[in-house]
Amino acid sequence: MANNRLRDLRARLRDRRLDALVTTCLPHVRYLSDFTGSNALCVVTAERALIVTDTRYKDQVREEAKGFASRIAKGQLFDELPASSILSKARRIGFEHALLPVAHLNRLEKLFPRKRFVGTDGIVQSLAAVKDATEIAHLRAAAAITDAVFGEILGLLRPGMTESEVAAELSYRQRRRGAEGDAFEVIVASGPHAAFPHARASDRQLGTGELVVLDFGCRVQGYHSDLTRTVAIGKPSAELRKMYRTVLEAQARALDECRVPMRARDLDAIARGHIRREGLGKYFSHSLGHGLGLQIHEDPKLSAKSSAVLVAGNVVTIEPGVYVPGVGGVRIEDDVALGTDGNELLTRSPKDLIIL
Amino acid sequence: MANNRLRDLRARLRDRRLDALVTTCLPHVRYLSDFTGSNALCVVTAERALIVTDTRYKDQVREEAKGFASRIAKGQLFDELPASSILSKARRIGFEHALLPVAHLNRLEKLFPRKRFVGTDGIVQSLAAVKDATEIAHLRAAAAITDAVFGEILGLLRPGMTESEVAAELSYRQRRRGAEGDAFEVIVASGPHAAFPHARASDRQLGTGELVVLDFGCRVQGYHSDLTRTVAIGKPSAELRKMYRTVLEAQARALDECRVPMRARDLDAIARGHIRREGLGKYFSHSLGHGLGLQIHEDPKLSAKSSAVLVAGNVVTIEPGVYVPGVGGVRIEDDVALGTDGNELLTRSPKDLIIL
Repeated sequence: MANNRLRDLRARLRDRRLDALVTTCLPHVRYLSDFTGSNALCVVTAERALIVTDTRYKDQVREEAKGFASRIAKGQLFDELPASSILSKARRIGFEHALLPVAHLNRLEKLFPRKRFVGTDGIVQSLAAVKDATEIAHLRAAAAITDAVFGEILGLLRPGMTESEVAAELSYRQRRRGAEGDAFEVIVASGPHAAFPHARASDRQLGTGELVVLDFGCRVQGYHSDLTRTVAIGKPSAELRKMYRTVLEAQARALDECRVPMRARDLDAIARGHIRREGLGKYFSHSLGHGLGLQIHEDPKLSAKSSAVLVAGNVVTIEPGVYVPGVGGVRIEDDVALGTDGNELLTRSPKDLIIL
Repeated sequence: MANNRLRDLRARLRDRRLDALVTTCLPHVRYLSDFTGSNALCVVTAERALIVTDTRYKDQVREEAKGFASRIAKGQLFDELPASSILSKARRIGFEHALLPVAHLNRLEKLFPRKRFVGTDGIVQSLAAVKDATEIAHLRAAAAITDAVFGEILGLLRPGMTESEVAAELSYRQRRRGAEGDAFEVIVASGPHAAFPHARASDRQLGTGELVVLDFGCRVQGYHSDLTRTVAIGKPSAELRKMYRTVLEAQARALDECRVPMRARDLDAIARGHIRREGLGKYFSHSLGHGLGLQIHEDPKLSAKSSAVLVAGNVVTIEPGVYVPGVGGVRIEDDVALGTDGNELLTRSPKDLIIL
């Protein structure tokens, strides 16, 4: 696994005339090496691959990071690099400029005054955006737990329950079913509160005739699920029902027309166009979706401005929504693995409006 | 609140001959302004204070960030700065060099080619390390929830239960009692697994005669609690009991002798010295504790190398531990608010060895 990833990374480095890549981004380190520790510096050159970590992970790094040499630092991780000699032949060394703090670059430049450090963007991200079968199996397993918990929660929701109580149940039940934890802080947003797409979960009580947005997910082997369903507590108004129908249709169209290769922005436009034609365009205030993997937000981005092209192996969320101030909100989200011979819907919870 | 903090920040800037500070560190933005959004750039000068965020937080930023001007960015947050003119008179502008990514500094230097950007370290951290009464009230409330849940879990622990099941209960019960969420990923480490101080929670079942380390906490108004207790499932061996007694005594000494002003490293030495004299010195492999506030790890650091001096208003963890490979581990941790007229123990769970 890691060996294919190193091979692909090295091809990208050659394309950019880089002799090495340095990263301290933990999901990137994990992606390249399978090392799961919480403190790591990873360096890959054409011939060598090294992880520097601290004494807590002395045994673990050897066990997990096959094909990588390892060093245990007593102090700062970067200070181990000269003695490792891994960069001795490298001249142009890439670093991730959107992620690496200035102090770390300063340290590298001080340790290696004659080398050239080159800011790069998206190298590991572009590799990680294409999932292999093992990764898709983990994503599928995470999605299955989240689906099962959505099924359970329907039996619990009732007027008077607070958003926070619902969030606690969703989180708890995912762990009880074997999840490593939440994929992100659970969102439960009801009534007018649901009109804020960034709402979390508050002490607000669910009220009759309201829509409730439930947006949650979990982690399995580090891989994330991300599901949103919107359900009604008692019969909702005609306005809310129209919002629901519009989002559901937009999502169905995007799922139907999603294929590879395709420009991500074109997929965004399919969902957005439908919502606009229904007169709700200005209420769909975020992008259509995002890649999903060892991080909750990965490439490719599915937005109106995205330059990404969808390819086989991408796993993405498709999550249109409308948010009408003072009225309420609707979002419907699934996780989809894209393939040449059709897509696999990883999340399979029902989507017809559920009225509890 | 925020006004005192701005006043104190401005004094620090004057001391360092800085005309402004730029930060994108969300806990720092929240500390200075009370703004709780998930995307923010904050600039403070001698006369002005500005937050740039995105359209999701248009109303919220005005409501929360009293005394700050706000701007809503359509694209990158930094690109709003020239039009805001907040930096027009500034010459030396501080940024947090251990936190700011290289790409952001590059962007600033491109937007303001004639200004000098100066890497700084620890300015906001040093302010945030001294808590006021409101902050201590939030920390106390978080600690009380965590204590209550520790009391509840004692009735549930039994041989055969998995670490993950225990972790799910701890997390769930804190939320049920009003916590905003976990302070960090819950640690439940049993038997030989407890010998890894960085263990999380696995599918391992609790066994009879084993010690179980429970390390967990929650958030209230953004402020964290952090409690560790080690309990026995059935009667433990003499070796484990000695480990427990040694850590308990070390922690009691540190709590007893902790006063202000005092060098943090001297407090570390009190606990470490006791453990060393009991012959377990090499098994206490981490530092004594850390500051606690809007972040789970803050200043002051309580370690053998720390240059910090403890002062009134610091809130710190005191958490010695010993970890004997193949045998087990013990850690006991409390949160303490330091004061001139004595300290307040925020966590109050019992510490005599509990044998279930």
